[in-house]
Amino acid sequence: MKRSDRLVSLMHYFLENPREHTSLPVFGEQYKAAKSSISEDLDIIDRVMRAEGKGYLQTLPGASGGVRFIPELSEENSMAFIRQLCTMLEDPERMLPGGYLYMSDILGDPKMVNYLGRILATAFHDSAIDVVVTVATKGIPLAYATASVLNVPVVIVRRDPRVTEGSSVSINYVSGSSKKIQTMVLPKRSLQEHTNVCIIDDFMKAGGTINGMINLLDEFNANVSAVGVLAEAEDDEDERMVDHYKSLVNITEADGKHQRITAVPGNISPYS
Amino acid sequence: MKRSDRLVSLMHYFLENPREHTSLPVFGEQYKAAKSSISEDLDIIDRVMRAEGKGYLQTLPGASGGVRFIPELSEENSMAFIRQLCTMLEDPERMLPGGYLYMSDILGDPKMVNYLGRILATAFHDSAIDVVVTVATKGIPLAYATASVLNVPVVIVRRDPRVTEGSSVSINYVSGSSKKIQTMVLPKRSLQEHTNVCIIDDFMKAGGTINGMINLLDEFNANVSAVGVLAEAEDDEDERMVDHYKSLVNITEADGKHQRITAVPGNISPYS
Repeated sequence: MKRSDRLVSLMHYFLENPREHTSLPVFGEQYKAAKSSISEDLDIIDRVMRAEGKGYLQTLPGASGGVRFIPELSEENSMAFIRQLCTMLEDPERMLPGGYLYMSDILGDPKMVNYLGRILATAFHDSAIDVVVTVATKGIPLAYATASVLNVPVVIVRRDPRVTEGSSVSINYVSGSSKKIQTMVLPKRSLQEHTNVCIIDDFMKAGGTINGMINLLDEFNANVSAVGVLAEAEDDEDERMVDHYKSLVNITEADGKHQRITAVPGNISPYS
Repeated sequence: MKRSDRLVSLMHYFLENPREHTSLPVFGEQYKAAKSSISEDLDIIDRVMRAEGKGYLQTLPGASGGVRFIPELSEENSMAFIRQLCTMLEDPERMLPGGYLYMSDILGDPKMVNYLGRILATAFHDSAIDVVVTVATKGIPLAYATASVLNVPVVIVRRDPRVTEGSSVSINYVSGSSKKIQTMVLPKRSLQEHTNVCIIDDFMKAGGTINGMINLLDEFNANVSAVGVLAEAEDDEDERMVDHYKSLVNITEADGKHQRITAVPGNISPYS
């Protein structure tokens, strides 16, 4: 196989299998090529991906040595995208009762969500993450987009127990904004003990829902190593119940009376 | 930019932007390359992707001419994957009360779900689809995976109205298996009139839920052009309420008493 053909095939493989460790002899075998040729292919891919701010190839030395593609999004690409998202969110038509914003169109766009997932995964690249946990329903797409890039599974916490999941652990929690007592459920078999967890959700106000997830995950002796949300909004009355998190955007103003929304990059921004 | 670098960059672009129409001069400009060079690059990509059964480049002639990448999965790749899925599903540990199977681990694996989405999208490549519609919660990942490949948005029908979505249309429907009356809700602003819709869900027994979605979509004058499910299961008592659909696997037996599950490729298989 010629270099040009190998590069096309390898790129498809790396993008379909992010963070998957593959040893060089596997490629050599598959493409019937010398190790030195494969190494040159990988150098080209690594160089182009870095130059475009889209990730890099990580080489793992030693007997079990090999390579894996780490998808990332450069700060420049990320910030340009987040600023565009802020502009979209400031459309007054999005205003809903209770200081909420209509975001289903944004969360319903797979390409946009995949992009946001890559930004979050880039921010969490130093964290130990075995699984992404979210709560039904709106956080699910962003959770999958993030998990895809991190190459880990997704576990979905539900607000209603379902017959189709077997025995489960449930907790009650107080929603920070509405002060209502709510329930969260996670099937026992969905999470092993002592797992490193990244929590993803779409929206955080006082943080009651995410705090509830942290308490539920405590029951599984999980280690919450990262928390990421699409949007955070300020809450006048309450202190935030969650300390360490990354937000993509920050809704600093959602004034229903004057139909005015102000959105700025969240604390994921290096300038925030 | 050299050919090898261009191929790496182009592959990333095509995989990140499936079915997105791009004119050749855009590439020529970006890579500072002659049209003939770009054409040769595209020929290489098209040839390798076809040979590997992973899709092809579609050339659109004329003044607005250009190219777009159609991700597909060859019959051979698809069937090998579906057979592997059947074996996974036949594990007796998956048996849950009521003839249900535990599938959250499969639906929680982004790579597996992305693969399944590609198989469904390949099956629907001739259908007019503007949007993928699913119902919360378990169908969501497969809906996004399918929509990602089709490059269309996702709309999520809910079983509970939520304050954060604005005014909505709701219907009552009878679940085919449990005979219970249930409610489905779709916010008005989430779907325009006369949209071509692909319905995706995780599981279909009698088809009551999908039939309910079809009725709800009727209220939006939508045209349901495709229906796809991960798994269908036979239902002794009822006739199926949905006629035209594609299933990836068919659970022909789920015998709780003898802990026996039999799964075969669904009607998406050319041999079914």
